Amino acid sequence: MKIPSLILRQLYTFGSLRNEPDGFSFALKNRLSDSTLTGIEAIEVDDAQIPLDSVDLDFGDEPVPARAVSLDEAIPFPVRAMVRLRARCACLREGQHELRLSFMTGNFGSLELKIKDSISQRGDERIKVPYDKVDDYAKSIIHRRQQFVKEFSGVEPHHLTHYSFDPEATAGNIENFTGVAQVPLGFAGPIQINGEHAKGEFLIPLATTEGTLVASYNRGMKVMNLSGGVKCTVVDDKMQRAPVFIFDSAREARDFEAWVNDHLEQIRHEAESTSSIARLLYIDTYLAGKFAYLRFNFETGDAAGQNMVGRATFAASSWIVDHCPTVRRFYLESNLATDKKASQVNVMRTRGKRVVAEVTIPRDVLIQNMRVEPEQLAYHAQVANVGSILSGANNNGLHSANSITAMFIATGQDVANVSESSAAIMYVELTEERDLYLALTIPSLIVATYGGGTGLATQRECLEIMGCYGHGKVKKLAEIIAGVALAGEISLASAISSLDWVSSHEEYGRNR
Amino acid sequence: MKIPSLILRQLYTFGSLRNEPDGFSFALKNRLSDSTLTGIEAIEVDDAQIPLDSVDLDFGDEPVPARAVSLDEAIPFPVRAMVRLRARCACLREGQHELRLSFMTGNFGSLELKIKDSISQRGDERIKVPYDKVDDYAKSIIHRRQQFVKEFSGVEPHHLTHYSFDPEATAGNIENFTGVAQVPLGFAGPIQINGEHAKGEFLIPLATTEGTLVASYNRGMKVMNLSGGVKCTVVDDKMQRAPVFIFDSAREARDFEAWVNDHLEQIRHEAESTSSIARLLYIDTYLAGKFAYLRFNFETGDAAGQNMVGRATFAASSWIVDHCPTVRRFYLESNLATDKKASQVNVMRTRGKRVVAEVTIPRDVLIQNMRVEPEQLAYHAQVANVGSILSGANNNGLHSANSITAMFIATGQDVANVSESSAAIMYVELTEERDLYLALTIPSLIVATYGGGTGLATQRECLEIMGCYGHGKVKKLAEIIAGVALAGEISLASAISSLDWVSSHEEYGRNR
Amino acid sequence: MKIPSLILRQLYTFGSLRNEPDGFSFALKNRLSDSTLTGIEAIEVDDAQIPLDSVDLDFGDEPVPARAVSLDEAIPFPVRAMVRLRARCACLREGQHELRLSFMTGNFGSLELKIKDSISQRGDERIKVPYDKVDDYAKSIIHRRQQFVKEFSGVEPHHLTHYSFDPEATAGNIENFTGVAQVPLGFAGPIQINGEHAKGEFLIPLATTEGTLVASYNRGMKVMNLSGGVKCTVVDDKMQRAPVFIFDSAREARDFEAWVNDHLEQIRHEAESTSSIARLLYIDTYLAGKFAYLRFNFETGDAAGQNMVGRATFAASSWIVDHCPTVRRFYLESNLATDKKASQVNVMRTRGKRVVAEVTIPRDVLIQNMRVEPEQLAYHAQVANVGSILSGANNNGLHSANSITAMFIATGQDVANVSESSAAIMYVELTEERDLYLALTIPSLIVATYGGGTGLATQRECLEIMGCYGHGKVKKLAEIIAGVALAGEISLASAISSLDWVSSHEEYGRNR
Amino acid sequence: MKIPSLILRQLYTFGSLRNEPDGFSFALKNRLSDSTLTGIEAIEVDDAQIPLDSVDLDFGDEPVPARAVSLDEAIPFPVRAMVRLRARCACLREGQHELRLSFMTGNFGSLELKIKDSISQRGDERIKVPYDKVDDYAKSIIHRRQQFVKEFSGVEPHHLTHYSFDPEATAGNIENFTGVAQVPLGFAGPIQINGEHAKGEFLIPLATTEGTLVASYNRGMKVMNLSGGVKCTVVDDKMQRAPVFIFDSAREARDFEAWVNDHLEQIRHEAESTSSIARLLYIDTYLAGKFAYLRFNFETGDAAGQNMVGRATFAASSWIVDHCPTVRRFYLESNLATDKKASQVNVMRTRGKRVVAEVTIPRDVLIQNMRVEPEQLAYHAQVANVGSILSGANNNGLHSANSITAMFIATGQDVANVSESSAAIMYVELTEERDLYLALTIPSLIVATYGGGTGLATQRECLEIMGCYGHGKVKKLAEIIAGVALAGEISLASAISSLDWVSSHEEYGRNR
Repeated sequence: MKIPSLILRQLYTFGSLRNEPDGFSFALKNRLSDSTLTGIEAIEVDDAQIPLDSVDLDFGDEPVPARAVSLDEAIPFPVRAMVRLRARCACLREGQHELRLSFMTGNFGSLELKIKDSISQRGDERIKVPYDKVDDYAKSIIHRRQQFVKEFSGVEPHHLTHYSFDPEATAGNIENFTGVAQVPLGFAGPIQINGEHAKGEFLIPLATTEGTLVASYNRGMKVMNLSGGVKCTVVDDKMQRAPVFIFDSAREARDFEAWVNDHLEQIRHEAESTSSIARLLYIDTYLAGKFAYLRFNFETGDAAGQNMVGRATFAASSWIVDHCPTVRRFYLESNLATDKKASQVNVMRTRGKRVVAEVTIPRDVLIQNMRVEPEQLAYHAQVANVGSILSGANNNGLHSANSITAMFIATGQDVANVSESSAAIMYVELTEERDLYLALTIPSLIVATYGGGTGLATQRECLEIMGCYGHGKVKKLAEIIAGVALAGEISLASAISSLDWVSSHEEYGRNR
Repeated sequence: MKIPSLILRQLYTFGSLRNEPDGFSFALKNRLSDSTLTGIEAIEVDDAQIPLDSVDLDFGDEPVPARAVSLDEAIPFPVRAMVRLRARCACLREGQHELRLSFMTGNFGSLELKIKDSISQRGDERIKVPYDKVDDYAKSIIHRRQQFVKEFSGVEPHHLTHYSFDPEATAGNIENFTGVAQVPLGFAGPIQINGEHAKGEFLIPLATTEGTLVASYNRGMKVMNLSGGVKCTVVDDKMQRAPVFIFDSAREARDFEAWVNDHLEQIRHEAESTSSIARLLYIDTYLAGKFAYLRFNFETGDAAGQNMVGRATFAASSWIVDHCPTVRRFYLESNLATDKKASQVNVMRTRGKRVVAEVTIPRDVLIQNMRVEPEQLAYHAQVANVGSILSGANNNGLHSANSITAMFIATGQDVANVSESSAAIMYVELTEERDLYLALTIPSLIVATYGGGTGLATQRECLEIMGCYGHGKVKKLAEIIAGVALAGEISLASAISSLDWVSSHEEYGRNR
Repeated sequence: MKIPSLILRQLYTFGSLRNEPDGFSFALKNRLSDSTLTGIEAIEVDDAQIPLDSVDLDFGDEPVPARAVSLDEAIPFPVRAMVRLRARCACLREGQHELRLSFMTGNFGSLELKIKDSISQRGDERIKVPYDKVDDYAKSIIHRRQQFVKEFSGVEPHHLTHYSFDPEATAGNIENFTGVAQVPLGFAGPIQINGEHAKGEFLIPLATTEGTLVASYNRGMKVMNLSGGVKCTVVDDKMQRAPVFIFDSAREARDFEAWVNDHLEQIRHEAESTSSIARLLYIDTYLAGKFAYLRFNFETGDAAGQNMVGRATFAASSWIVDHCPTVRRFYLESNLATDKKASQVNVMRTRGKRVVAEVTIPRDVLIQNMRVEPEQLAYHAQVANVGSILSGANNNGLHSANSITAMFIATGQDVANVSESSAAIMYVELTEERDLYLALTIPSLIVATYGGGTGLATQRECLEIMGCYGHGKVKKLAEIIAGVALAGEISLASAISSLDWVSSHEEYGRNR
Repeated sequence: MKIPSLILRQLYTFGSLRNEPDGFSFALKNRLSDSTLTGIEAIEVDDAQIPLDSVDLDFGDEPVPARAVSLDEAIPFPVRAMVRLRARCACLREGQHELRLSFMTGNFGSLELKIKDSISQRGDERIKVPYDKVDDYAKSIIHRRQQFVKEFSGVEPHHLTHYSFDPEATAGNIENFTGVAQVPLGFAGPIQINGEHAKGEFLIPLATTEGTLVASYNRGMKVMNLSGGVKCTVVDDKMQRAPVFIFDSAREARDFEAWVNDHLEQIRHEAESTSSIARLLYIDTYLAGKFAYLRFNFETGDAAGQNMVGRATFAASSWIVDHCPTVRRFYLESNLATDKKASQVNVMRTRGKRVVAEVTIPRDVLIQNMRVEPEQLAYHAQVANVGSILSGANNNGLHSANSITAMFIATGQDVANVSESSAAIMYVELTEERDLYLALTIPSLIVATYGGGTGLATQRECLEIMGCYGHGKVKKLAEIIAGVALAGEISLASAISSLDWVSSHEEYGRNR
């Protein structure tokens, strides 16, 4: 079988050339699907044949002579396994070399790999942030890093190094831990949430450095409370990963969609075997040219789930690559998920939680508290809608990102998900009684109450203050976040409509 | 002149009804343009006339009898001024009342305002977060808030309350200050930046709770350093506010565009009078229906500048409303800025800094360090491009939001601006020598090195460690952020192409 | 049951007031769901009661006295039925009147409708295009229209009136038929199509007035033929209609999605009962606020199917409104279909046919015929990709709209669908052999080979020349259109890359 | 100077190898900027040197010996000039050859070009549509083409071949003219237009095959006429071409923007020298990576102007390339224009005409004529707005594409521009009197009243019937088109709101 070299490189990685005490070695890694090695046929370095008698295969335990590998003595070579081939002979000079390896595999038959690789310089003298392989969260290494920062930059940090928890707790959340950012935190509320999971009044922790933010949300909450609270509903919940499979032509890509549907149970089985929580809901297929993009949709419980679905999708994809003979190439991500990016697919088809917050503010409540009439807000919403159309904004409301970000920082969410979570659809309606109905839909709110940064010191406290830490709480948190965001819309829209906006910034935001 | 009531309500606010010891009072506020009061003609409450002899006008100093106001005794009533009209007579019963006020003004002649307002309940028994009008950042009130949080929620915060700076410093950055979020902070780098402002090696503070993030950026930086560093260029710099002006029809809206151009110098004068820093660059006009959206573009020095341009645009808009007779209505913001929102206008026409980071990675450097060939990354970029087209993403790269967010938290930026700052245009080219050229364009990076949260304790330290605190540093910071973001693109793209992505998360990210 | 008046107006239309020889009458129409009339309780005109003894109900045959209607004598009142209530009494004066009708229904109980309506002026003296109720396609009336055009405009049309077919054939395709537009038509090709339905060489009819268009496509076809032809594949096929259902809150909207899934078989039954061809594939639900948008996806055979799916969706929606008690309001279309509009949902999830055309052009063929190297086209594609990102275009190729439009006009398609059909995803790849692979994906190509304008005189001839008229041909036509569009991409991309573009226009397009 | 080969290929094309009676020849074309030839240094074919004594340069008149070219005898070699180098020696065998040419130029010094080219087969036996070089619009060649179509397809066209004008008139509008598409044409109206250019009642020619279309627009026009007519305003007018200039890095691209501004007068001079009509308004620059996209904006009089601005921009770009030393590469189009594509840049910044149509329909007029209340239409508009946000549509109205397309076909516009012209921004407002204000903004309406297809037989008649043919009429036509489009919005929105939509299709559209 003639396999194009680019595809071959997706099947097997080959390289990591280095000199050894008695010769040299390089590695071969199986990337895509379980196989066996059934023969080593030839190794060349810079056009010179290496005698195979001098070559061993090192899988980490007992080396196997290259000659010993054969169809009868096939060696298992599962996906992600790596073997190092060691040649006992002269060392290689520094600089670039050209390697060529011919070998036999159980699934693809005879293959030939070529690569140019270099014998790298002895030692890497690059200055690096100090790191301790054994315990990188110990006081001593953290101290060394703090010293290093001081020496490198000439700045001695006094506040960064000030934290109240055991750094060991951050293992899994950060590497090169050196201290903390202390982000000011204030409380707004209480806010009356009428959710299915969050019921009652909640104090809202907001970590921010933007003056007027807490005060502005507070005003909005007051109005909502006087209107009986905010009704919040999680209307959808799923997390995605979107691998792409590449084929010879569009025809195989199209047929692949049917193939996936036919094998959905096996694919689900592989995906779900990687986690006790992730549950595959369905797969959307998007076709363009010879590419088939699969958007896997999972339930992920109380975790945000990006890594969980990454693993599950990888397992499923590996199975697919193993079993679908027309796949020519594969990438685990393709910008259709879409992680850490605003996108129409997220607005349309949900990423994380899709939450709606609704309130009807009686006319008098609005006038008395915000000095603005429902008609003015409704009119502004219409004009701002046209503005959104012209600007191509992914949010026709005003600033839901503000509270979402402040709550994300406070509660240990992955704050970079503000990219997706800042999308919103605002809808404002003047009722027949001329009260003001508002509905804010957040289509891709990515939150967790378990895992990630949620268990860290201040983060967990903030979640606990809202009764939102741990299992079974994630929809409650989503409801609260949506309700708070709507409070901010009412507050800022009123300020814009009554022109108090600029002056309120002047009053509170003196640092600006 | 017959002015439609909705427009009238934009000219004057009227309300804030309350009982006084000897009667009742209500307020009248001038919203849009300087004028004079030339007569008080009639006041009715619930259809009963209030004798004008019993009414005084209270501008904050000596009261003026309503009868004394006349064309000859016109009283200045500048924009944003407020007068309280006090009627000495019976108090009003609790509940709703209908007020009607007829009065004369210098610019609009005789006007009549109606409103329904209520005498509010004595005292607001709503539970509130404790607040001290005199010094809200004093230890005592902060402690009272901490107690309140504990009592309200039943959760005693131990870590939240732990901070190393004087809370007074946060005045202007937060209201209801109660403590801090401690966000883990690690350093990546040093990274070699070849900017026009940032030149040399920089240690990068990253505040995050996402495992593998620091390590992943570190890998990318190593590859870039081995390639001679990353070239960074700020190609544009401006901050916007976008008011909307509303007219009788499209025709006046169109003519308004010409009017604005004709009066640009006066408009600039008004705008720039509000700040010693803000400089009006130009105004883009967008027309739809009877609306004219003006997108003001300012230079804002080392501040991010949203509030600065808000004030400047408000001043300019007030002048416009005063001088352009066809304007019927006005809102200071219209979703064309676009603040805290991903949008096409920001990608196209810049918001904040437009920065480009570029690097050419020699083929061997990539292969040896990332175990992936340039062709694989270039191919993935093409496939991911098609993915972005399908998903409608505002970023055809991978995850620039990650480092931008972590640096924003570390350095006291307004983190909610990740909404805009997460947009990116990634371009990957295989050179004729088969090396890999990458260029990351961040079209709307919103950063400051002065003002906002940049002066807070840990935030300032992080800026200082990069030599980026204070005046004249903002483009330097923008260059560094762009360089770091590109490091992350290389690292993750390599991981996706070599399939090590999932496993690297497994290794580092154990908390997930 | 208190039903808000806006909802009531969706249930029943009421009006069409007119004077009769012996009194006056007005109509009541049932809009949304099958019901019965179980009583007429009161009729008022301008606050005067009309004696019910004088009122009859006219359903088109024998009138029923209003008094006779009762719970025991319930009168069937199916959806879309109309009854005229005739009152024998004085005629009404010209001008506006206020009507009030109280009546009982089987499903909603007692209802009251109010409306203001006018007795319209006798006769409408507006000038109108002449129209013949009996046979509007007869020579005589067509001639009268031509005369009318001449008289109205002072222009005597000589060419418009020149056509070669029996106008009767256009009944169902146009009203007020007066003549034809004669659009110049040229042939390009033959082009070698390697489809699943279109196999072989095809002559391509192009109706256009844009100079160079036919010549340009011809050049592209030559190159593709020399490359062995173009491979075309229909990868998806469906037509949509997207009604919106409105609820009291987001919670009912969300639950509605489950309800729809639970009742899918009944919904399908209702939908498919309206046509022997339409087959309901699936329904996508999109939620925002209190709205649930259902995007119905149908197979429609060889028709484009917009009207077919409109009827089917209306039938299904009527059933839903009848059976789902939480629906408060309903519109048959909501801008989620999306008909006659470019949209991301069409690019992502297909509208009409999703077709891919692919070709690999050998390096030499490209150089010899287009004087341009594969690298230049590949480079331009990359640069144009970035251009598309900046401009927010729904097509990262060059001008697929050109051939699609010219073929749509030639073959009797609904040309306004160019709005959707002009979207495209272009993908260009330099192969390892440095040949050029191109794939053009048209995600929303709306075509028919039966119905609509396809059976008209020249239109049918053009379809027949390609062997594409009638049943079972629509995918064949879609393949051909995609192949032709790709030819144009190659031709124009080569011209841009070789700079011959402007000069080729100069040479051919002298009318410009 | 070492110029990378890809760039070199943009400077000079080289190829077109062919055998001559006494040897072989090949061509050299200057692509980008005026220069001189100052020496021919070497020619190699397949590694064999060709003696320069045997080589002549053929510029079309007297051949120049290669030896004669020198710095002292420099030969002018202006941009787009081509020289054929003829070598008197043996002919070349069929198949591929490698050519190498070293030569000296005035502006770039010594250059070396390499190419692989083939001696092509004698004669191209491909079947082609018959073509007559001398007079391709003569009866005889048209007849031969008709015969060819019949023979090739086996279908004898009877109607295609039926037209009423002299085919010669289509020269410049179509190649391979073979006949016409006869598209049914009906008239709607008259419609009362209150424009600045169009004033009074107009009969509207609609060429369509979509049943109900003419009737539906007619209904909308009636309602508008009863409301006093439609107010139409052209608010902007410009046509674009967007070349891209490529640099070594982002830094030069950014500096290029300033360079362009500094040289704007020269650039304008070059651009405007190509046409007596085109006037350069301004240039927008968009930067990404090392690319600078210039979007040239021109006034183009009564022509649509795409070709006019193509020529003008090409002239300007050639001058730029000649004078700006940092430009490395250039393409005349980059997907930022954006021609024949829906795009955000067109919606935002106009392409062609930006036109607004406005009407306020009195409540009674709407109810009596459309059986629907203003509230229902206003509500639908709000719901449809949310639908547009979800679908990512470029039109939040309903179907403006329908009338635009029908009028484009009727009046000889470039119908493929429906891609851009179908974008629209719909705005609906309930006035305080509860009448209905509607404004339709068409941001990129591309129309002409001169040039292109406007002078053809039926097309010109249709323009004349509206008084819109020829110079000074294009804004009048734009106003009329916008007014008609708004009529359709009212008609369809009413039908959707009153549920008569489906049934009206049933009644009229029997062919569906």
